[in-house]
Amino acid sequence: MTSTTSLFSPVEADLCLLAENLKELVGARHHMLRIAAEHLFGAGGKRIRPAIVLLLSRAASPERQISDKHFRLAEIAEMIHTASLVHDDVVDESAMRRGVPTVHSSFGNRIAILAGDFLFAQSSWHLANLDNLTVVKLLSRVIMDLAEGEIQQGTTRFNADLAIEAYLQKSYYKTASLIANSCKSVGVLSGVGEALTEKFYGYGRDLGLAFQIVDDILDFTGSADVLGKPAGSDLKSGHLTAPALYALKEVPYLRTLVEREFAQPGDFEEAISLIHSSRGIERARSLAAQHVRQAVSYLSELPASESKQALEDISDYVLRRLN
Amino acid sequence: MTSTTSLFSPVEADLCLLAENLKELVGARHHMLRIAAEHLFGAGGKRIRPAIVLLLSRAASPERQISDKHFRLAEIAEMIHTASLVHDDVVDESAMRRGVPTVHSSFGNRIAILAGDFLFAQSSWHLANLDNLTVVKLLSRVIMDLAEGEIQQGTTRFNADLAIEAYLQKSYYKTASLIANSCKSVGVLSGVGEALTEKFYGYGRDLGLAFQIVDDILDFTGSADVLGKPAGSDLKSGHLTAPALYALKEVPYLRTLVEREFAQPGDFEEAISLIHSSRGIERARSLAAQHVRQAVSYLSELPASESKQALEDISDYVLRRLN
Repeated sequence: MTSTTSLFSPVEADLCLLAENLKELVGARHHMLRIAAEHLFGAGGKRIRPAIVLLLSRAASPERQISDKHFRLAEIAEMIHTASLVHDDVVDESAMRRGVPTVHSSFGNRIAILAGDFLFAQSSWHLANLDNLTVVKLLSRVIMDLAEGEIQQGTTRFNADLAIEAYLQKSYYKTASLIANSCKSVGVLSGVGEALTEKFYGYGRDLGLAFQIVDDILDFTGSADVLGKPAGSDLKSGHLTAPALYALKEVPYLRTLVEREFAQPGDFEEAISLIHSSRGIERARSLAAQHVRQAVSYLSELPASESKQALEDISDYVLRRLN
Repeated sequence: MTSTTSLFSPVEADLCLLAENLKELVGARHHMLRIAAEHLFGAGGKRIRPAIVLLLSRAASPERQISDKHFRLAEIAEMIHTASLVHDDVVDESAMRRGVPTVHSSFGNRIAILAGDFLFAQSSWHLANLDNLTVVKLLSRVIMDLAEGEIQQGTTRFNADLAIEAYLQKSYYKTASLIANSCKSVGVLSGVGEALTEKFYGYGRDLGLAFQIVDDILDFTGSADVLGKPAGSDLKSGHLTAPALYALKEVPYLRTLVEREFAQPGDFEEAISLIHSSRGIERARSLAAQHVRQAVSYLSELPASESKQALEDISDYVLRRLN
C-alpha cells in the first residue's frame, strides 16, 4: 500500500515547511496553544488538503515555482480544515481522532474553542491578504458550508429516510466543499481560464466526495486499531452514511433498529451485522469508485507532469484504502 | 438617565429590522439555533455596535438613505460581536450575561459552539459579498484581534505587573477594534476620503476603549442586579482591569492578595475593599472621560445632524452609566 508521503513527494518539502509555519503561527502566543498546535500540525497529520493545492498549483504550470499566494492558499485550506475539526470534535464529543486523543479531550473545551477560533481568525486574515476577492468569496463559502454541514449532521441523526442525495449534499458541505473550492481557487490564482477552473473545482468536489464515502465505509470495515476509534462509531451516534443508507433499502428491519436509536440490547450489533450481510458496503464502494473516475477525468487537459501523476495517484489511493 | 433606545431613535426602525434579519438568519435551519437566536438577538440586546454603524452612515451623508452595504456592515458587526460573545462565555465558563443565562449554560456547549461558528461563518460570507477588499481586510483584522484578546485575557490572569498600556491594548483587541474598524469601514463605503475615514476609526477606537473601561468600573461599583452577574466577577477570575491596576500602584498589599490568587479566606473581600478605598476607581473614571472627549473630538468635521448628535450623546451616555 502506497503511503501518503510517497504520493506527495513532488511537494514534500513544501508540506514540511507549511506544517512548521502553522505550528509557529498558532503556538507563538500561548503555551497551551503551542502544545495544541504541536498536536494538530505534528507528525500525525496527513496534510492531504494542502498537498492537493500544492500539486494542482504545480500541475497547472509545471515550469514555474509555486507562488507565495499558492502557498498561502494551501496554508489557509489546512487552517480552515483544522479549525473545523477541532470544533467538530467538541460538538460531537469525540474523544479520539486518528488514534490520538482530540484537543478538547487532552486540553479541555476552553483550549479547543480558542484554538479553533484562532485558526478561523488567522485563515480569514490570510485570506483577505491574498488580495483576491474571488478567492475570498470561494473560501468564505467553504466556512459557511462547514457550519451548515455540522448543523445538518446534528439534525439528520437516526433519520432512516435520509436520501443518498441528502447524504452526498451533507458530505459536500462537510468535506468536499473545502477541497473543491481550494482547487477552484488554484485555478483563479493561476489564471487558467474559467473552463479549466471549473474542472479544478470538479476534481476537488468528486475527490472530496469519494474521500468521505471511503471514510464512511471504513467506519464499518476498518479495525478500531486502524481507525483510531471504535468501529461503527458513526452509526452508533446515528450518523447514517452510504453503507447504512443502501442497506436500509434492502433490509426493512434495519429501519426499526435505527428508528428506536438502538435502544434495546443487541440492537446496534444486529444493525452492524445486517449492514455487513447486505450489499450496502459494495454499493457504497462503487459510488466512491464512480466519483474517483469522475475526479480523474477532470484532469485530462493538464499537461503530463509528476504533479499531475500524483493527483491521479491520490484518487486511486482513496479507493486502495479499502483493500 | 437616558435609555439606549432613545439615543438610537434616528435608526430605531433599522435596528429593529436588523434584529429580525439576524434572528431569521441564524434560526432558519435548526430548532435549537432558533431558540439561541431568539435569546441572542431578542429584546435584551443593546445593539450598540450596529447603532453606531448606522448613525455614522447617516451622519456621513445626512441627505441620503442608508445603503444596502452600510446596512449589511451593521449586521456583520453585530454578528461578529455576538459570535465572539457566545464563544467567550464558553471559554470563560460564564453562566450569566446581562442578567440572562448564557447560551452555553442554557443550551449546552454544543449549541454555543455551533451558534458561534455559524455566526462567524455568516459574517465572513456577508463580508466577502460586500465586494470591497479594504473592508474585508479591516473586519478580518477584527476577528483576529478578538481571538488575540481572548488569548491575552487567559495569559495575563493574576498578573499584578500588567501595565495600564497592556490593559488598554487588550481592551482594544477585545472591544475597541470591532467598533473602530466598523466605523472605519463606514468611511470606506461612504467614500469620505482617507483623513475623515481615519477620524471615524479614532471615534470608534476611543469610544470602544471608554466603553470597556466603564464596564470594568461597573464590575466594582454596580450591584449584582444591574450587572446581571456577581459584582467583582472579573477580579475574582484574575482579570485585572483599570480600577485594580491603578489601586495596585497605591496599595502594595493588594499585590500580595492578587499574587496568591485570593487563596486565603477573606482575601477577595479585602482586595475589593482596598480597591474601593484607593483612588483606583476615580482614576479609571478619568481615563474613560479622556477617551470619551477624544472620541467626540473626531466628529467635529461632520455637518450637524440628528445622527451626529446621537453619536455625541452615545459618548456622554457611556460615562453617565457610572452615575
